[in-house]
Amino acid sequence: MILAPWREPLQRAIHLSRSIPYSRYIQLATVSKEGKPANRTVVFRGFLPNTNIIQIVTDTRSQKFSHLQHQSWAEICWYFSKTRQQFRFFGKVILVTAEYEDSKLIKARQTSWQALSDSGKEQFFWPTPGDLLTSNQPNPKINLKDINPPANFCLLLFNSEKVDFLALKGNPQKRYLYFLNSNNTWLTQQINP
Amino acid sequence: MILAPWREPLQRAIHLSRSIPYSRYIQLATVSKEGKPANRTVVFRGFLPNTNIIQIVTDTRSQKFSHLQHQSWAEICWYFSKTRQQFRFFGKVILVTAEYEDSKLIKARQTSWQALSDSGKEQFFWPTPGDLLTSNQPNPKINLKDINPPANFCLLLFNSEKVDFLALKGNPQKRYLYFLNSNNTWLTQQINP
Repeated sequence: MILAPWREPLQRAIHLSRSIPYSRYIQLATVSKEGKPANRTVVFRGFLPNTNIIQIVTDTRSQKFSHLQHQSWAEICWYFSKTRQQFRFFGKVILVTAEYEDSKLIKARQTSWQALSDSGKEQFFWPTPGDLLTSNQPNPKINLKDINPPANFCLLLFNSEKVDFLALKGNPQKRYLYFLNSNNTWLTQQINP
Repeated sequence: MILAPWREPLQRAIHLSRSIPYSRYIQLATVSKEGKPANRTVVFRGFLPNTNIIQIVTDTRSQKFSHLQHQSWAEICWYFSKTRQQFRFFGKVILVTAEYEDSKLIKARQTSWQALSDSGKEQFFWPTPGDLLTSNQPNPKINLKDINPPANFCLLLFNSEKVDFLALKGNPQKRYLYFLNSNNTWLTQQINP
């Protein structure tokens, strides 16, 4: 596996921000069936081992899941307030649900479920997100020790094809574009900020 | 003018975060001509006086400007790390350029230009953003005292039609949906987080 050239500045930003929990909060933009944008905060769950693929988890009942079923292109905006750096990741998303036909990715889905905190897991047993608030019924009894994720748990694999890196510190600002060429090799260009 | 009901929780979040400069950094999602999403950080420039319209400034040479010319729907994601609250604004954008045919909005464009810092103004005289880095030529001499914004300065007016407010603090989390009904009145619903 070849580490993409944007991994190094990204890793440095993550490291310098390691004491800030919300530095792993990123904004994911998708497009609806009607061609309109949507944007929300999600949590960066690390990279799929030995790849440059960003992991996110989601609920199959969420709006972003249905958007991505229809339009798999997405863009992540990741702003690091401490280092004043922005990374924009443009790429395609693979939705790894229980029915996904790749045993390695099904295993990755299970691993990402196990890595969730208890409160993170519990959300998947809440009533349908976005529906009118249902009366405060207690959640169904759940066994969080269960190794198997619930059917509505989805591992979202984000495969970047273009990364736009902007460093606001310094004058002039610096901006780099990383992109995959037709040979699947990463190229780097310095561009105007 | 009637203050939209989401202005009150938003104002509180802005107030509680007032010492944090990057709390005014928001993520704006747009859709390209090809129907693909884009997402970047922009700066919240306050509300157009006596309206619920969010002000942003941009360069007519930027990608977002051409996206918005083609698809005026956009979504802003605004996450407040201090209060752990997220606001998602879904709405339409008006691009107020020098040719805009409304003297009131042309005045607003001028006011927003004057409110920019010198370094904010200077960016509009930089080489075209996103182009390959041109040699480090000095910028053309500019007079920042000039009252008139340059032709590539655009005031972006974001008119929300739906606002999704999520408060992560507390158990359970709280989520409210604000939307304009057919009479142009704001309605509020509590929904499942």
